[in-house]
Amino acid sequence: MVSKQNTPATGSEPLRVFIDGEKNHCIAVTERGLHYGDGLFETILLHNGHLCQWQRHCNRLIDGAKRLEIPMPNLAQLVAEITAITNGIENGVLKLLLIRGSGGRGYRPPSAPAPHRLLLLYPLPPAPAWQLGVRVRYCHTPASINSALAGIKHLNRLDAVLARSEWHDPAISEGLMCDAFGNLVGGTMTNLFVWNQEQLRTPPVNRSGIAGTRRALTFELAAEFGIDCTEFPLTPSDLDQAAGLFLTNAINGLWPVRELAGRHYALNALPWALLNAIVRASHAPD
Amino acid sequence: MVSKQNTPATGSEPLRVFIDGEKNHCIAVTERGLHYGDGLFETILLHNGHLCQWQRHCNRLIDGAKRLEIPMPNLAQLVAEITAITNGIENGVLKLLLIRGSGGRGYRPPSAPAPHRLLLLYPLPPAPAWQLGVRVRYCHTPASINSALAGIKHLNRLDAVLARSEWHDPAISEGLMCDAFGNLVGGTMTNLFVWNQEQLRTPPVNRSGIAGTRRALTFELAAEFGIDCTEFPLTPSDLDQAAGLFLTNAINGLWPVRELAGRHYALNALPWALLNAIVRASHAPD
Repeated sequence: MVSKQNTPATGSEPLRVFIDGEKNHCIAVTERGLHYGDGLFETILLHNGHLCQWQRHCNRLIDGAKRLEIPMPNLAQLVAEITAITNGIENGVLKLLLIRGSGGRGYRPPSAPAPHRLLLLYPLPPAPAWQLGVRVRYCHTPASINSALAGIKHLNRLDAVLARSEWHDPAISEGLMCDAFGNLVGGTMTNLFVWNQEQLRTPPVNRSGIAGTRRALTFELAAEFGIDCTEFPLTPSDLDQAAGLFLTNAINGLWPVRELAGRHYALNALPWALLNAIVRASHAPD
Repeated sequence: MVSKQNTPATGSEPLRVFIDGEKNHCIAVTERGLHYGDGLFETILLHNGHLCQWQRHCNRLIDGAKRLEIPMPNLAQLVAEITAITNGIENGVLKLLLIRGSGGRGYRPPSAPAPHRLLLLYPLPPAPAWQLGVRVRYCHTPASINSALAGIKHLNRLDAVLARSEWHDPAISEGLMCDAFGNLVGGTMTNLFVWNQEQLRTPPVNRSGIAGTRRALTFELAAEFGIDCTEFPLTPSDLDQAAGLFLTNAINGLWPVRELAGRHYALNALPWALLNAIVRASHAPD
């Protein structure tokens, strides 16, 4: 697979794959990650030879493993494997999966699971300059509601799959999803922030959605800039009245929204000093 | 694997596995079924050498494939493969998975997916006589709410996994789950029916839950018996006032509930002629 590292980046095929530290491409057909989505993942930006915001990814993985009761791999060993798989590659996307392992027919997890750690290194997809903003739509597919699963980055992602399959226009970068209560949850692969000239608001992630690494970064940096940034239930009508919107994600960092479902937003209404700080920190190791 | 068919049944290891009609135990690490739970499954009872209620399983798979836009395999070929994998085995559990195949990093499904069909044949787990009834508890883990995913038997099953991990007492056969609205959805692996001396009520499956094959059978047979059987939103307090309860599932057929969370139900209050008919039909080919 290493020989593929000079082929044109399509974003669709991994350059390198490690399973439990070994070059391997085979998962057991009895794997619970396959049968139930019984596992977790992280999608980590590799930028100028370093992993970005590694500690936040690692902490979310630890939190998810605790909530799903999947034993965490030895962290020093995991870091060594990541160092090995990224060796010689400057920029890319590292996808890490932690899956519970094989274990019987039926939902009940084995009492002594033998989990697997998967590392897939992908080429960095090409992206236009983030400052230009993106066009966004609404999705019909609702976001799943489950307080026991909300926030963590588990492998039950069919809601995002169906939502992302709603559009094929490459000019649309993202789709927003609501839950069954009509509350906004975020984009299919991003967290949503709403700017009201004074405050930032973002949907809570205690019932749906993922607690994004760049979402947490936005909270921290907003506090440093003296900007009130809080969780608040939001509906589409709140977006109609917003001064501006932006989306955060580990790979793209930050996307200002210039158009949502035909409504245009003036990008210069956004707090650019904060936005620049988020993007800068997004590309830093920690 | 065929050589294993005479080993003691543990219920945990498949006797035989086919992937796309070939003996194989390896799934590609890029499989979307693993990354997103992007696929469907059916759990089919093999009884006295025949598949039970095959047409209902097949119809639900077709419905699920349509809703997830996963191309269905050729049915004649699938049936031939099932005939081959069950050859010489009288009783067992056949698990069928249809997964979307590999396809890129990111939620968007490939425009031309190459799905895989997996067949896993397990020994039939031992079970006490169904007529004795079972003990049941409530689970804290909520059932996921998503109208786009409700009813079909997709691979996003972490809610059931977490619910099933809440108890270890083998005397408890099943746990009931509610959604975020406080409505009952069913058991972790069963559909729930409530008997009020005159009527059967079962939770709708348009927001959560699975449209079970034996659930559909119960509707049909109740009509034949002149018993009103309808979908109705139910809460735990409705169960406190019920004359009786039972649970349905493809492998166990039907379980009368003799105890739920410390409350005892008189099994003789149930409409036994109907129950017997459901169990009989449950074990029939169609």
